[in-house]
Amino acid sequence: MKELRSTPRAALASRRGRLAAALVGVPALFASGRPIGRNYPANPYPFRASSHFLYFAGASLEDAWLLCEGEETTLFLAPPPPDDALWHGPSPSREAIAEALAVEVRPLDELARTVAGRNVTTVPVQDLATRATQEKLLARSLEHPSERDERLLDAIIALRLVHDAAAIAELRAAAVPTEAGHRAAMAATRAGVPEHAIRAAFDGAFFAQGAAGHAYSPIVTVHGEVLHSHSYDNVLAEGDLLLADVGAESAGGFACDVTRVWPVSGRFSSTQRELYELVLASQEAAIVASVPGARWRDVHLVAARVIAEGLVALGILRGDPAELVADGVHALFFPHGVGHLLGLDVHDMEDLGDHAGYAPGRTRSDQFGLSYLRLDRDLAPGMAVTVEPGFYQVPAILEDPRLRALAGDRLDRDRLARFSDVRGIRIEDDVLVTPRGNEVLTAAIPKGPAEIEAAVGR
Amino acid sequence: MKELRSTPRAALASRRGRLAAALVGVPALFASGRPIGRNYPANPYPFRASSHFLYFAGASLEDAWLLCEGEETTLFLAPPPPDDALWHGPSPSREAIAEALAVEVRPLDELARTVAGRNVTTVPVQDLATRATQEKLLARSLEHPSERDERLLDAIIALRLVHDAAAIAELRAAAVPTEAGHRAAMAATRAGVPEHAIRAAFDGAFFAQGAAGHAYSPIVTVHGEVLHSHSYDNVLAEGDLLLADVGAESAGGFACDVTRVWPVSGRFSSTQRELYELVLASQEAAIVASVPGARWRDVHLVAARVIAEGLVALGILRGDPAELVADGVHALFFPHGVGHLLGLDVHDMEDLGDHAGYAPGRTRSDQFGLSYLRLDRDLAPGMAVTVEPGFYQVPAILEDPRLRALAGDRLDRDRLARFSDVRGIRIEDDVLVTPRGNEVLTAAIPKGPAEIEAAVGR
Repeated sequence: MKELRSTPRAALASRRGRLAAALVGVPALFASGRPIGRNYPANPYPFRASSHFLYFAGASLEDAWLLCEGEETTLFLAPPPPDDALWHGPSPSREAIAEALAVEVRPLDELARTVAGRNVTTVPVQDLATRATQEKLLARSLEHPSERDERLLDAIIALRLVHDAAAIAELRAAAVPTEAGHRAAMAATRAGVPEHAIRAAFDGAFFAQGAAGHAYSPIVTVHGEVLHSHSYDNVLAEGDLLLADVGAESAGGFACDVTRVWPVSGRFSSTQRELYELVLASQEAAIVASVPGARWRDVHLVAARVIAEGLVALGILRGDPAELVADGVHALFFPHGVGHLLGLDVHDMEDLGDHAGYAPGRTRSDQFGLSYLRLDRDLAPGMAVTVEPGFYQVPAILEDPRLRALAGDRLDRDRLARFSDVRGIRIEDDVLVTPRGNEVLTAAIPKGPAEIEAAVGR
Repeated sequence: MKELRSTPRAALASRRGRLAAALVGVPALFASGRPIGRNYPANPYPFRASSHFLYFAGASLEDAWLLCEGEETTLFLAPPPPDDALWHGPSPSREAIAEALAVEVRPLDELARTVAGRNVTTVPVQDLATRATQEKLLARSLEHPSERDERLLDAIIALRLVHDAAAIAELRAAAVPTEAGHRAAMAATRAGVPEHAIRAAFDGAFFAQGAAGHAYSPIVTVHGEVLHSHSYDNVLAEGDLLLADVGAESAGGFACDVTRVWPVSGRFSSTQRELYELVLASQEAAIVASVPGARWRDVHLVAARVIAEGLVALGILRGDPAELVADGVHALFFPHGVGHLLGLDVHDMEDLGDHAGYAPGRTRSDQFGLSYLRLDRDLAPGMAVTVEPGFYQVPAILEDPRLRALAGDRLDRDRLARFSDVRGIRIEDDVLVTPRGNEVLTAAIPKGPAEIEAAVGR
């Protein structure tokens, strides 16, 4: 029997009730999507329902459609193909689904006439085949949201931005396999093995701890300066730092997102330790700043300021740290944003573009570095964010003429050359904003240099 | 630097030359496809190029378009985004790609005017966003192939059906991590661990042996009677058989597809051994029959006949084995086909429907069991197939009124009840047809009961 993992009914009732209140009678339709063929239809990628559907429906079901209208919630389901039980085993009955998800279940072929001619709002899913069905059902293009759709998006964002108890429980659940994975990966590290082998240590621990899988394509690399590296072919060498940005997805579909960096030898060199401690100080300052009412761009600038001060202290940069940050010179080494929303998506609700990440009236900066900030809202209790500053020596940046000119003689390249055994460091945790400050959901994963060295062992 | 793994230039030249000869001047356009967002665009599934593109282009490149026209082969590539080197590291240069793949490389924005107004043939890719671009470029719907497209399909099928030396080398390469995975999984098996843990043993061995990943969603289950089981939550118990249908994808994108079944305890029970040996005998007979000139449906019927004879000998079925097979009674226990084509796809070229699997003039049977046969061609040297008979006790079949009536008193349910510790057995190898017979590409993976028991250990 395929297990039906579901969100508690009370949480679903509350989410749907608040959605109904925001929409005042306008019906909203959420599609779960369909499996996507990898090279042919019968060889699909592992199915995962659309996050908006998951949030309100409460379980990951294929080709399922949730219609929320005032107090009524109806789930439209295709009948299983005649030979489904042969290939896929027994499925939960419609009655069991109706009971678990607190919905009325109706056959999918009734959906078209139920929504026909009515002004139903929706959010387009990623899967284009399902999106085409959405457009056909609603008899309109979903390329741009209608005014009513915008109201739906606002309502969804207001709900998903502030995690309820059920969502927080899922975020905590995702942290458990993530911790096990990072510990297993640290313990498996030794010179001579390929990055593949360390990645495999994560896989094993994740599954063993009940994760649904990876929340995103894992980064496991001795080339931490490649920010989104997705190959695992390098062989670990004694003097390398290994960067692992790897997080599990909970059974309910929520993400964990954690980066740790550790020395392959089990011991940081003095230069590695200096920069590691600098990034750690930056991260700790940013976490301290991540409290209710704080504007996220300011949290980013706190992290940047610590990095700039540290690089001046190490002699890599020259000048006034405040001015270096204002000019964006720190971004030569810390080019990305300090973090992003976290929830059912790793970059939560990024399918809505900056609609979710940026507060009304705020837009992206066009300064190099700051332009990559995915979030600029004021923090509030219940929001979850990642906090992840870094230090990287990216050739494409350090050799860029425009950025060379920006730095000018404020960058001491001779001094920088002393730190050549540091290609990339990022330290990332998941932070839940609480009424009185915050809680680091991933605090159990080794992070201090001594803790890291002990976990790698040797 | 992202590595460019590529097919040998001589193989590419030969494939393209034979394609050109078949198309007599008609240009053919192959799209690689684009990464597909999982829940938002920046969180894609691991990219894999379309198999047809891979076959003729020789490397897995994103949003790349190959135009083959007579002697000329042009690869149209989008320029990398300005900050690509920051996020993804340095890429192979256009010159390096042109040299490795023996193509002229041109900017993607020249493609539209190159194909405009010309009668270009193509094959639609799975990725619908790219398919929409294909339709726009060629200014026609790809819902049904045109007459020229049909000619292209015939040419592709003729080529990909009979593997060249480069393809055979890739099939052999895919078998290496697959063997390591099955051995690691057998050695990791013990009562009390979840299926997850055994699946993880495959992952680790695959990556360590240089596989690109899994060729398909792995099946690792103590419920072998669920033919396409894709959850891993059951805990292994002492008396269980574990079924693992797991194959690696080679670095060049070719598939391996292997099923083994082993006892969790390390020892087959007497009933498990009887049925295991029966399925093994069926598989061995089908392999012996898989020689040039043999019709695949006959190979299937050879396997079915051995199963029927064995079930009569064990007292589970009654009657004349030939008649039981003709009536499809064996299919109550062996409901699927004996195998399928294997190549760049696990079910090779299944994106073309039965066009690839069924010889002209042959169509699917509507008899239960035989209707699932994915292949009905005459074998020829260079073809690769899976050979995978099985025995299952599927409740949905054994309780089906129509199938109960078909079996009537030819099924001895009391006798069958004695074999209740066998839920599902399948034994699957990959077979390359050779001029003088065949070669089992996956022969190194333990299969005989004694070998299996030794590999599980205890």
